[in-house]
Amino acid sequence: MSSHISALQQARLGYTPKLPKALRGGSVGVEFGAATAPASHQEEIQALFPLTYGQPLVTITAGGNLPAGPLKVGVVLSGGQAPGGHNVIAGLFDALKAANPDTRLYGFLKGPGGVIKGKYQELTAEIIDAYRNTGGFNMIMSGRDKIEKPADLAACKANLEAMGLDGLVIIGGDDSNTNAAVLAEYLQREGCKTRVIGVPKTIDGDMKNDYIEASFGFDTAARTYAELIGNICRDAQSAVKYWHFVRLMGRAASHVALECALQTQPNITLISEEIQAKGITLGEIVDGIVQIIVDRAAAGRNYGILLVPEGLPEFISDIKTMIEELSTILGTEEEYLRGLADHSERVQYLESQLGDHSARVYGSLPADIQEVLLRRDSHGNVPLSQVETERLLIDLVSDKLRLLQSHGQAEAVKFSPLGHFFGYEGRCAYPSNFDADYCYSLGYAAAQLVRAGVTGYTANVRNLTRNSDEWLAGGVPVTMMLNMEMRKGKPTPVIKKALVELDSEPFKFFAANRESWGVEDAYIFPGPIQYFGPAAVCDAPTVTLALEKGVKVQA
Amino acid sequence: MSSHISALQQARLGYTPKLPKALRGGSVGVEFGAATAPASHQEEIQALFPLTYGQPLVTITAGGNLPAGPLKVGVVLSGGQAPGGHNVIAGLFDALKAANPDTRLYGFLKGPGGVIKGKYQELTAEIIDAYRNTGGFNMIMSGRDKIEKPADLAACKANLEAMGLDGLVIIGGDDSNTNAAVLAEYLQREGCKTRVIGVPKTIDGDMKNDYIEASFGFDTAARTYAELIGNICRDAQSAVKYWHFVRLMGRAASHVALECALQTQPNITLISEEIQAKGITLGEIVDGIVQIIVDRAAAGRNYGILLVPEGLPEFISDIKTMIEELSTILGTEEEYLRGLADHSERVQYLESQLGDHSARVYGSLPADIQEVLLRRDSHGNVPLSQVETERLLIDLVSDKLRLLQSHGQAEAVKFSPLGHFFGYEGRCAYPSNFDADYCYSLGYAAAQLVRAGVTGYTANVRNLTRNSDEWLAGGVPVTMMLNMEMRKGKPTPVIKKALVELDSEPFKFFAANRESWGVEDAYIFPGPIQYFGPAAVCDAPTVTLALEKGVKVQA
Repeated sequence: MSSHISALQQARLGYTPKLPKALRGGSVGVEFGAATAPASHQEEIQALFPLTYGQPLVTITAGGNLPAGPLKVGVVLSGGQAPGGHNVIAGLFDALKAANPDTRLYGFLKGPGGVIKGKYQELTAEIIDAYRNTGGFNMIMSGRDKIEKPADLAACKANLEAMGLDGLVIIGGDDSNTNAAVLAEYLQREGCKTRVIGVPKTIDGDMKNDYIEASFGFDTAARTYAELIGNICRDAQSAVKYWHFVRLMGRAASHVALECALQTQPNITLISEEIQAKGITLGEIVDGIVQIIVDRAAAGRNYGILLVPEGLPEFISDIKTMIEELSTILGTEEEYLRGLADHSERVQYLESQLGDHSARVYGSLPADIQEVLLRRDSHGNVPLSQVETERLLIDLVSDKLRLLQSHGQAEAVKFSPLGHFFGYEGRCAYPSNFDADYCYSLGYAAAQLVRAGVTGYTANVRNLTRNSDEWLAGGVPVTMMLNMEMRKGKPTPVIKKALVELDSEPFKFFAANRESWGVEDAYIFPGPIQYFGPAAVCDAPTVTLALEKGVKVQA
Repeated sequence: MSSHISALQQARLGYTPKLPKALRGGSVGVEFGAATAPASHQEEIQALFPLTYGQPLVTITAGGNLPAGPLKVGVVLSGGQAPGGHNVIAGLFDALKAANPDTRLYGFLKGPGGVIKGKYQELTAEIIDAYRNTGGFNMIMSGRDKIEKPADLAACKANLEAMGLDGLVIIGGDDSNTNAAVLAEYLQREGCKTRVIGVPKTIDGDMKNDYIEASFGFDTAARTYAELIGNICRDAQSAVKYWHFVRLMGRAASHVALECALQTQPNITLISEEIQAKGITLGEIVDGIVQIIVDRAAAGRNYGILLVPEGLPEFISDIKTMIEELSTILGTEEEYLRGLADHSERVQYLESQLGDHSARVYGSLPADIQEVLLRRDSHGNVPLSQVETERLLIDLVSDKLRLLQSHGQAEAVKFSPLGHFFGYEGRCAYPSNFDADYCYSLGYAAAQLVRAGVTGYTANVRNLTRNSDEWLAGGVPVTMMLNMEMRKGKPTPVIKKALVELDSEPFKFFAANRESWGVEDAYIFPGPIQYFGPAAVCDAPTVTLALEKGVKVQA
């Protein structure tokens, strides 16, 4: 550790996150709603979760009478970092200690693997206080192990019983919350007293539904990327000579790219879900980009900004088909391909084996990407995620422009492209006031759910576009959010990933305005996240959330 | 333009920049010091600048009696963007209008080319007000033309006389301020009344000396990069599996990399000037990096952060020699090389022509960089600046680690590298409070110098580490900062570029602490620039400036 901390960290250690009104008082209770059921596959899910199926929604109320404890509670971080994770733990800690100073909180180390292995440390005020309102997951680290296999479930039970834990809070995304439900069901069946509560985390923004308005971290990560994109828009408009192609982290869903587009209004934003829904091919994407570049050049603007979500390639129909064909060929001919003398022989062979259109798609790719796709990962998958999509698009767009110009077209275009990837810059940023408050409230809510003795729930906080006075905290049964999907060849219960819906308000707003953002400059410069200024600057929710909740937004 | 602006932009439009005490009152004067002389080449410089040589330092004082005008003044932005440029113009405008509401300010468009071509627009309050405290140079744009050739000087004079300008303020870096002196001397010789005043701008931080404490924009750009680097440090420490190699914009000088290192304390920072001074070879740099990676792995830390300044390659002795040899070969054999069948034939031929060590250096480079170096630019130069140094280092370090591991060494190392380049993200950021205040004060000072009738000066504001009450504004004769350097084969007067000095306090502080930042984690997380919070968070100068001015800094 460094011998000192930054001035901002020092100032943020003293920030007191806002809580929903019901959570502020000394005494709280819970109210149970009617029984719940998942939207589909009710029978299969009930068969898999006989004990935790159909549980009611829970609302936390002021002035109730939950048991005070003392309790023993564990907490674990699962999966990729998201701003605000430390505040969930701080909220959990403060709520538990407020109910009973003798309650103890234990942090499992390095993710779910720590629960399996029984690696943990007690979290004291001294530890917690050093991490309040900071980014990162480095207080107790995270990991990507999954508690799924029978032996792992049994190991967890043994560790939880040995520790005498009353509750375990799992902070993670859709898969981790699904695992929380599996563990909750298992522990209850085995007669273990430990209740399991999930907390919705992911910068991707793809864990949301009627009961979970947002996953934490999305706000801060998207704002951090939007700061940089806005700065680059201003730079493009000042330098008037570069086209910036920006790839954004966010696995499958395009929420991050969409939110950044709404915050900054760049010239082009590709939304994977739309491209998939409309069956748009790679060639059509390139043509669409080229058209805007040509139109802007005709208007004297040889510069611009394009956003592309990292998950794009697998949403493009002909790329997907080509990858499937390639996988089949690699499955039998990988050795033969490796034996070929050089790159051009490999390409020649593959083009002879792929279908006509796939051969053309593969042939159109830059050589380095052609080679990357031949290196299958340890699961035998073609490593599509390693494709630097911004560079792929730059290459294809450059080719197309050269072709046009060789025919005397697009003569006004001077195309100087620059590629960027933003991801690691935002996952561990200091949480925005929104995420700091939301996470602290989620942790506080999770504590009340543990005290209330419920299990198999994800903590939630709703009404997020309103003042925190009106926020409502509670819990939603995980089984209610499940559906059955094929995973590794068999039907598996999972929380449905929330992709960008084309009939959602955020997408419709984007679609209605994007044409005017294309040829004209309509850039907005959000600037860096602010923690201390006017509320309009510091405390606004994401544009996505505002539009989803019917708040009026200006284009 | 967009129909709305961001909440931060709205809030910042209302920010009133701080001014030195002497500039706040209604009436100001100037005090002249003793005659000045450059540190070297006095005779040559005097011969070139007979009229503006030896002018005295100027200090602006409260309560003087400068002529009120009305005046006509022009302003132009020269070279790359730097945060705060709009505030220089706003300060200039406000100071001129405060002295006489009938004074007019004209902005030349798209840089010095606008002065040559006579392209300008009047800057009114309505225009200025929309750009207060914003980033970018998009109010009047910038350009890289130079006013040097006799025909260009004559064209400028004709335009300035036609407009009846009393003064011209040139906002630019070392070259632009040199050009300001050339133009000042020329106009005075020609009997043209237009006075020329420069303003020190560059995010690179390499225009500074005894009279200019900092170039504007350095503070904001370095802070923006440090925000991202700090976030990545936190991510590295949370994910515990990636080594991040970060290349930073900043042409020749390493000030940006050094400042970012001082703000974030990453594991490795390469300082070009040290590498040149010590004659460190590429192989030695790689070995040094590998050693820290191995040591960290042995301590259980298979992650880290390395900073590398963009200008590094030309400071490495054996790269420089290899490039010189390569240039000579390309000068005569470029056609022959192009005719060779493929990459490996080109490499084979070049290795046969280069000296032994250069052949080895060239042969060690990744294939794509070998090819990049063969594409000479329009001036016949080998395009070293197009080398993505972070990728080069990742490649060479990976090779070296593989070699060690094939010999059973470095077995604890798991090296998963990720490359980043930060540059365009910071050039057009909203200026920090420091840059907003400093730039506004520089513009205000430039206005007083024009009113005072002096020419061939660079505006300056000193005592920057103190409260703005104690800031001192004035002007320094450009001729005093000149020395003679070889440019395009002939001795030319230029302002000496300030590189990182190995006996400077910032470098000594870094050198004294870097070992403890290498194997241990001593990361500091500065977070995003803040505009509204506590002074310690919002208003501190750079660590570089603090150390240069003897302010105590903690490691």
